Amino acid sequence: METDFVAWLLSRLPADARLEVPPGDDAAVLRSPALRRTVVTVDMLMEGVDFVLGPDVTARAVGHKALGVSLSDLAAMGSRPEAAVVAVALPKRGGESLAQELHAGLASLAAEHGVTIAGGDTNSWDGPLVISVTALGSVPPGAAWRRDGARPGDLLVVTGACGGSLLGRHLAVRPRVREAAAIAARFPVHAAIDVSDGLSLDVSRMMAASGTAAVLELAAVPIHPDAVRMSGLPGDGRSPLEHALGDGEDFELVLALEPAAARQLVAEAGRPPLDVSVTVIGEVVEGQGLFARTTGGGREPLKPRGYVHDFGN
Amino acid sequence: METDFVAWLLSRLPADARLEVPPGDDAAVLRSPALRRTVVTVDMLMEGVDFVLGPDVTARAVGHKALGVSLSDLAAMGSRPEAAVVAVALPKRGGESLAQELHAGLASLAAEHGVTIAGGDTNSWDGPLVISVTALGSVPPGAAWRRDGARPGDLLVVTGACGGSLLGRHLAVRPRVREAAAIAARFPVHAAIDVSDGLSLDVSRMMAASGTAAVLELAAVPIHPDAVRMSGLPGDGRSPLEHALGDGEDFELVLALEPAAARQLVAEAGRPPLDVSVTVIGEVVEGQGLFARTTGGGREPLKPRGYVHDFGN
Repeated sequence: METDFVAWLLSRLPADARLEVPPGDDAAVLRSPALRRTVVTVDMLMEGVDFVLGPDVTARAVGHKALGVSLSDLAAMGSRPEAAVVAVALPKRGGESLAQELHAGLASLAAEHGVTIAGGDTNSWDGPLVISVTALGSVPPGAAWRRDGARPGDLLVVTGACGGSLLGRHLAVRPRVREAAAIAARFPVHAAIDVSDGLSLDVSRMMAASGTAAVLELAAVPIHPDAVRMSGLPGDGRSPLEHALGDGEDFELVLALEPAAARQLVAEAGRPPLDVSVTVIGEVVEGQGLFARTTGGGREPLKPRGYVHDFGN
Repeated sequence: METDFVAWLLSRLPADARLEVPPGDDAAVLRSPALRRTVVTVDMLMEGVDFVLGPDVTARAVGHKALGVSLSDLAAMGSRPEAAVVAVALPKRGGESLAQELHAGLASLAAEHGVTIAGGDTNSWDGPLVISVTALGSVPPGAAWRRDGARPGDLLVVTGACGGSLLGRHLAVRPRVREAAAIAARFPVHAAIDVSDGLSLDVSRMMAASGTAAVLELAAVPIHPDAVRMSGLPGDGRSPLEHALGDGEDFELVLALEPAAARQLVAEAGRPPLDVSVTVIGEVVEGQGLFARTTGGGREPLKPRGYVHDFGN
């Protein structure tokens, strides 16, 4: 926590009863909710990789996304967001106005979801913009939604619709925080993951972690209008379904539940407090891998598609 | 949390009873210690600004420092480190071996201080190495050492000795975690800060936060042998005392305590469990600003020196 600029940012943060020691000291001190676990996740976004600043992509949008992806991770654990800390490397040229915009994007989404910004580290350099957000949430003991708890016989459901996020939703992330809370309050969820790298890839990760296989009903996969639009762009060459299965950055939730619970969830979805559609997209079966249901009622292997990170060598 | 390389890192992490859900899920779940507050701090280090990788500066040393500076912040709050999460941007060329070295440096220091690595986000790009560490600690309610609690009449003490950290200690950070725990267990500390930007600058920050002034006994300031060595380098032109007052990155602790407590602390220091020297360097008085005691027993203004961060404009 350093200097006048950070002091300026801190002065704009609302007071929060969860902070025993507010930002501005060597560290912040949080009153952890009694009898709840602490959930923690971190994500880093880099200019030129995760975004390209320009007329269409403001630093405010980057601040929003940087917090949004971490809140999506907290939602995918069935946890309630509490606090976040932010580290940034700002380009020296224009760094201060960039920081103000970043802060506006962070602060707005934080306020929407009741998250207190508990601290930060602001640096400048001759390199591109880098922002790292660590989000802290809370959940009752044993209640976190793991990705390894899917069981044969469960149905798989997804919130909202997938595909085509590059047309804007990849920045304007809407983390399913309230939806996760509404579901966690009423439904026993066996496993959960958020769709960050691609619906089929993220489902396959849940299956690998759970030691199970999934059979997807491809005709049931909810396709976002953006996936249809992207498919229609000149030279795209991919179907709306392919976009829905592989684009990623949808930040929807995939959940595994017992069939009765899944059907009840689908029936209750689409009205408050669960203000999003929920769709059954397949079932969990014994074995390993990912399959698509065939028209004859059989199954055929489905290759998981999505964004695979590359670490060089 | 992504892909095979992160999976490899995770497989090397020791199991930890504090983790209800270990790294590898959307987020980690920590069993927060009962009846303790959560302390959180984040620091980001950037290649070319905070370090220059080369024969003398390995990625292992960078990993050690990245965690070390955050642990020093936790120590300066009188808190016990519990967990850390790490986000990195790796250069594509050589990224994997860099990541392994970084991890080795992090893991070694984490093990030394009982810190569990609870998660991370590993990215690669064409830019320089960036690493951001968020450290979580715990402290009893109301017991955190704030920087705004110094009172007129308190004595100021510092652990160890300051100056010349650029000769190596700025990387080989030894966070005063055990020393802070030993002090917190026995002494009522009114205020604390770690020496990151410069002894005189960090003392002046404690005074500004506390609404008090400090009068330093310059002859008493413990000068590190490295400060003497740097002062003797051709063209240096600064005295060992100037190095001690302004170099920073010493990661020692400055504490404000009542005189009797301070003197008792000094008397007990230097043997287990408080295995570091502690020296009285001045006193807290009413007013504002930073002063040096003159030979006649008066005082004269002392300009705070140290590293001031620049955010561009």
